This record gives sequence, C-alpha cells and structure tokens, in this order.
Amino acid sequence: MLGEQNLDHDGAPAEPRHPPVIDKPVLIAEPLLPDLKDLIPLLEGIWERKYVTNHGPLHEQLEAALADHLGVKTAMLFNNATIGLIAALKLFDLPPGSEVITTPMTFAATAHAISWNGLTPVFADILPGTMTLDPAAVEKAITSRTSAILGVHVYGTLCDVDAFARIGASRDIRIIYDAAHAFGATRSGVPVSQFGDASIFSFHATKLFNTLEGGLVATPRESDRKKIYYLRNFGIKNEEEVVEIGINGKMNEVQAAIGLLNLRLVAAEKAKRRRLRNRYIEILGDLDGIQLPAEQPEVENSEQYFPIVIDETRFGRTRDQIYDALKARKVFSRKYFYPICTDFEPYRHLKIVSTRAIPYAEEVKMRVLCLPFHSNVSEDAVSVIHDVMHARP
Amino acid sequence: MLGEQNLDHDGAPAEPRHPPVIDKPVLIAEPLLPDLKDLIPLLEGIWERKYVTNHGPLHEQLEAALADHLGVKTAMLFNNATIGLIAALKLFDLPPGSEVITTPMTFAATAHAISWNGLTPVFADILPGTMTLDPAAVEKAITSRTSAILGVHVYGTLCDVDAFARIGASRDIRIIYDAAHAFGATRSGVPVSQFGDASIFSFHATKLFNTLEGGLVATPRESDRKKIYYLRNFGIKNEEEVVEIGINGKMNEVQAAIGLLNLRLVAAEKAKRRRLRNRYIEILGDLDGIQLPAEQPEVENSEQYFPIVIDETRFGRTRDQIYDALKARKVFSRKYFYPICTDFEPYRHLKIVSTRAIPYAEEVKMRVLCLPFHSNVSEDAVSVIHDVMHARP
Repeated sequence: MLGEQNLDHDGAPAEPRHPPVIDKPVLIAEPLLPDLKDLIPLLEGIWERKYVTNHGPLHEQLEAALADHLGVKTAMLFNNATIGLIAALKLFDLPPGSEVITTPMTFAATAHAISWNGLTPVFADILPGTMTLDPAAVEKAITSRTSAILGVHVYGTLCDVDAFARIGASRDIRIIYDAAHAFGATRSGVPVSQFGDASIFSFHATKLFNTLEGGLVATPRESDRKKIYYLRNFGIKNEEEVVEIGINGKMNEVQAAIGLLNLRLVAAEKAKRRRLRNRYIEILGDLDGIQLPAEQPEVENSEQYFPIVIDETRFGRTRDQIYDALKARKVFSRKYFYPICTDFEPYRHLKIVSTRAIPYAEEVKMRVLCLPFHSNVSEDAVSVIHDVMHARP
Repeated sequence: MLGEQNLDHDGAPAEPRHPPVIDKPVLIAEPLLPDLKDLIPLLEGIWERKYVTNHGPLHEQLEAALADHLGVKTAMLFNNATIGLIAALKLFDLPPGSEVITTPMTFAATAHAISWNGLTPVFADILPGTMTLDPAAVEKAITSRTSAILGVHVYGTLCDVDAFARIGASRDIRIIYDAAHAFGATRSGVPVSQFGDASIFSFHATKLFNTLEGGLVATPRESDRKKIYYLRNFGIKNEEEVVEIGINGKMNEVQAAIGLLNLRLVAAEKAKRRRLRNRYIEILGDLDGIQLPAEQPEVENSEQYFPIVIDETRFGRTRDQIYDALKARKVFSRKYFYPICTDFEPYRHLKIVSTRAIPYAEEVKMRVLCLPFHSNVSEDAVSVIHDVMHARP
C-alpha cells in the first residue's frame, strides 16, 4: 500500500527507501512562492511608478482578482488577518463591552481581535468531529449582552453556518467568520464568504494562498466596501474628513505583486495537497483510535491543514508520543491548537460554556495533531508517518 | 539669487528656463527606493530559505542596524507605525479609560492609537514656532486621570523634551513620542529616541527612511524588548504561553531587505534635502509674513518636511491661494496638518486645552503648508515656488 509512487515527481514511481530516511526536516507548512523571474518585471513596474503602497494599481488588481476568485461582492485586502479581523469587528458598531461568542479552539488572534475592540470574548465549546463552534453551546452562552458570534472555520472545516444563520436571524446578533484556514472553500458551490456578515481570510506565509503576511475581509454586501476602506486607512474619507477610528491595514504593492503571481499557483498546489490528503487517509484510515479530518461531503475543502485526533486509550499512544516520534525522524507535526485560548493568561479566568460536564475542547486539545501539509511533503515523509503510526508501542 | 545651479545634476549649472515650466508633477514626497539590482540577490536568499516572515534573518539584521543607526537600546520593527504606536501604548499598562494628552496637530493615527487602547485622548495646544505640544497647555490639561503624554516631533521638529521629562518625573505620567517624522534626529548629539519612555518611527513610503510600509518602536530600556516582542507577535511568549493581548505587528523579510538597502541611501538623500532646505530658506527668507521651519540650533534635523506658515494679513495672500497657485504650475504642496484631529468626527466633541483664548492650533491649521521635500525637487521647481511666492497679488 505504501510507496507505490513518489509524490514529488511525475516520472515512474521511485523505489522507496526502507526504512525511509529524511535528510531535510519536513515542516508543517512551507510558503508557496512564485518564480522570482516572474516577480522581477512586476517589481520593475512598481519601481518605475514609485507607487509603492496606499492602494496602488497591483493592490487594486489583486483585490479584484480575489473578489472574483472567492466569489464575493466585497473583498478588501489587509496587511494581515489580525488587523483585518480587528477592522471587521469594528464594521458593525457593536456596543462597547458587549459579548462576542467565539471558540477557544483557534489562534490567539481571534480572541485578541475581540479584546482590541473593547468587546468581551465569551468562549463556547466545539463539536466533536468538525471541531467548530457548537451551536447548542452558543445558544447556552447567549445573554442580553451578546452582540456577535465569531465562528472559526478551523482547519478549513466549515462551521454549522445554517445553525448560526438561524441564531443571527432570530436575534440582533452578527455572525462573523474567522476564515483564516478556509481560502477557497465552498459548500454546494456556495463560497464560504457568502455565509455570515463577514469572513476574514489569512494570507500568512503558512496559508495555501499567501502574500508573506496578509489578509482579506470579505462580506456579501457591496455596501460594506466604503466603511472597510475607511477603517483600513485611518478612517480617512477624503482629504478633509476622518470619519472613523480607523487603523493602518494597508498592504503594499510588492506583497500585492507576490499575491497576483501566487494566485496562479493555487490550483496546482491544492491538487497536490488533495493527493497528499488521500495518501494520509489511505495510511491512517485503518487505525483504531485515530480520527481523521471531518468529512463534509458538500464542502470543497480549502486543503489548509490535516488534523488528526488521537484517542490514546484506543490507539495505545498519546498525541505527544506521536509528535515526539515523528520529530525524532525529522518530520515536524504541530500540536494545533494546543494550548487553547482559555489556557492563555489574558483569558484564563474565563470558562468554556458547554453542554457537557467537561468541555470537548479541553479533551481534544490534548489529542489533536496537524500533520505536515504542503506539496513538498515527499512520499518518504509519508512513509515515515506510516511507520510511526503503525509501530507497535 | 535664483537658478545659480541645478540641484539635480552635478555638472555646470544649467541655464534655468524663465519662466520655468514643470513637465512632470512635483510631488510633496517620493519614496526612496534601492536599486532593484541590489535587491534581487537578497530576494534570492529569501526564496531559497523560504523564511519569509516571523522574525527572519533579514528582519533581525535590519533591527540590529536600526538600533545602531538610531543609537537606541531597544528597537523593534513593526509592519507600520500605527500598529507600533498601538503596541507601544500597551507596553505601559495604562489604566483603562485613563487620559493621554496629545496634540491635535498630528496625523489621525496618533489619536486613533490612544482610542484603540481603550484610553481617552485629551488634546492640548501647540507652541507657535515649533508647532509641538505646549508644556503649559499640557500642565493645564493634566487631571488625576492622566496616565501619559503623547508628544509628536512634528515635521521632525523636537518637542520640548526637557519640560515633558520634568512633568513625567514629578507625577506618575509616561512620556511617549510619536517620532514618525523624526528618523535620525538628535539634540546635542543625543538621539531623539533617548527622550521619554518610548519613541515610534514611521517607515511609510513618504518617510526619509522607508520600508514601503513600516515602523519602529524604540525605547531607552533594554528591559522593554521582551514585552514589545510579545505584543508584536500575538502576545506569544513561547509554544505554550500567550501572556499579552498582542497584535500582529510583524514586518516580512522582503520589506526588511528593502530597509537594509535603503539604510545605505539615507545619508546621501538627507544631504540633498539639506541643500533643498537651504535653497528654500534662501528664496523665502526675505518674505514678510512667511514663517520658516523653527530653528533648533542644537538639533540635527531629520529632513522630513519643510513647513511654512503663511500669515495672510502680512503676506497678502492666504495659504490656500498659494497652494492653488503652485498646483496650477504642477507643484504639489500639502496643507499639512489641515484639518487637525479635533476637526475629525470621532474627536469633534473634544476641546483643545490651551493657555490662549483661541488655541494656536486652530490658527495655524489655516496657515501651514508643506513644500515638496525630496531629492527629486528640481531647481525648476524651486524657481516656480520662488515665482509664486514673490508674485505681487
């Protein structure tokens, strides 16, 4: 079953080395970068125009291309997703101090963006399986001070968008999605950014589509464009008016140039990752106590991460043991997300609202592991993972 | 007196055209950019390492070079000065809602950074002459809720740092400087970042030293380094601890590469601007009703801007008339700062605390004009400015 073909070249399958030896560390992620030869002419244009930031022509071009690629009315580039998320939360004039319900199973920036807006994060539990925010826990967490729900399409797995749409519609609650992991995801052909009031994508180096650092605020309403534009650029409406307490969220032209070129590479990278996903499912699918990424049949996956959940009682070894065993063979997985937001000093005093006695998030944080997931994960690395996972303890 | 030499070449002085005609618009600022031929090898290194952000080697190199160049213990790069200023204000754990006294004669970001921290901006008047925060007005504005003074070295002109040091020392008040305009300024050889508790520089494209977008938080204490590092990177202390409500303020490697190369160009650009400054003084010095930039004999100027203040009653024409007359001849000056922060919708309800009946800031905002100030301002452009300023109304 193993080693039938090498993923990293197209010729005849190479004879795999047994046991495979990794020379160069295999990282959890690797940035997709365009050919420098393609970038240089774009840089020459920027240098000639001397128009290097403040919504230059490449910035405008990338923004239009992304609106098109993601199938969304309003798509506004940011210098990173955190600043985008901070601005997006500001978009809705949520009452100061009001509560925003979110998941602890996310990167710290999700909670921080709430705090920077003078809002109060409230953590609700996640669902087994998808590891996304549990609508029942959210219902339980809602108070008269709740102004928004900030769901996270964690690992690219979609939140229960229908449940949150119902919750949002029945009360005056905004639904916002941290879509940092969900670039290009769709459900039954509907782009992920069509769900909720706003979706924030990350273009950090570790993401499928990257601009080194970067982000995007997408909303299904053309009418949001103006205010996000102001918020991104210090609240400046025109030469004489500043109408919002804005921020500097501008992406420069060089990063926009890299984005324009990377956008052409996304489809091929995604196809390679899809093959890697299938290889992982092939080598791990028969293991007792290993939960593979949630299947969402109507969802076109963003191919961002490959998380597994290791039930140590059934599997016989813990997540940390697997992490260490892989690391010893130069394959770097990631305990992601561990710790979770409610473990962090600024949020440690907050409980996770759950329908269970012990929140599922507390359980899964000890069990979840993301495997290396990018096109340079060789078949040798897959072999190493196979060997480590199938070794008898 | 005019046209004795052309600033833009080194040969024999060209015969000036009379009246000079500007073919290409002369802008208020132009970004200093390194030769692309020098940048490409650095990009090749980044592409080979695939280490594109998160404190990469060029980032570390630039940070060290800037600490050295600016003569400061702690120098931390940011993706822009606004995010730097937001993080710097967070550094001191100022009580929520406490008051930060600042100048209205500044870019909106100064006030916004206070607001984003959940602090209350209090605007105090500026001094005639230097146009920096007036210590007497600041004293008048201090209440029991004052936690910090945020001075701005506006146009590169230094604040009365001695007065603010005294105020800070006599009370529990932090002194922070928005040094966006003051890159490389010194007083009696002492770097500007040695004054106060923190100084924030801007590396935006319009600044003498630029990284397209960028900024730096500098403090005179080595011990601040760690906390600023955490604040810049989501509050992450290590793989398992998040200790602050941080932000994403990271600069990527490509911008760091541009910064490393631009740093080599700063001295020559500064020398050219110094000559331009002297030319402006030459052609404007004899005009009644024109106030030239404040002289601070002990200060090594940052050569960032050249603001003049036009007293229309003595000069016979208004600032706006001069602006329009220059524009008609393709020379773009800037009404900077006009409007001022207290004119902006988020701060309009706030009064400027002043020792005068009508704050000086209200007066000068109608009179101040920044002339184009960079090495590509030709002698023809200087001639146009001379002609416009000397024309009889």
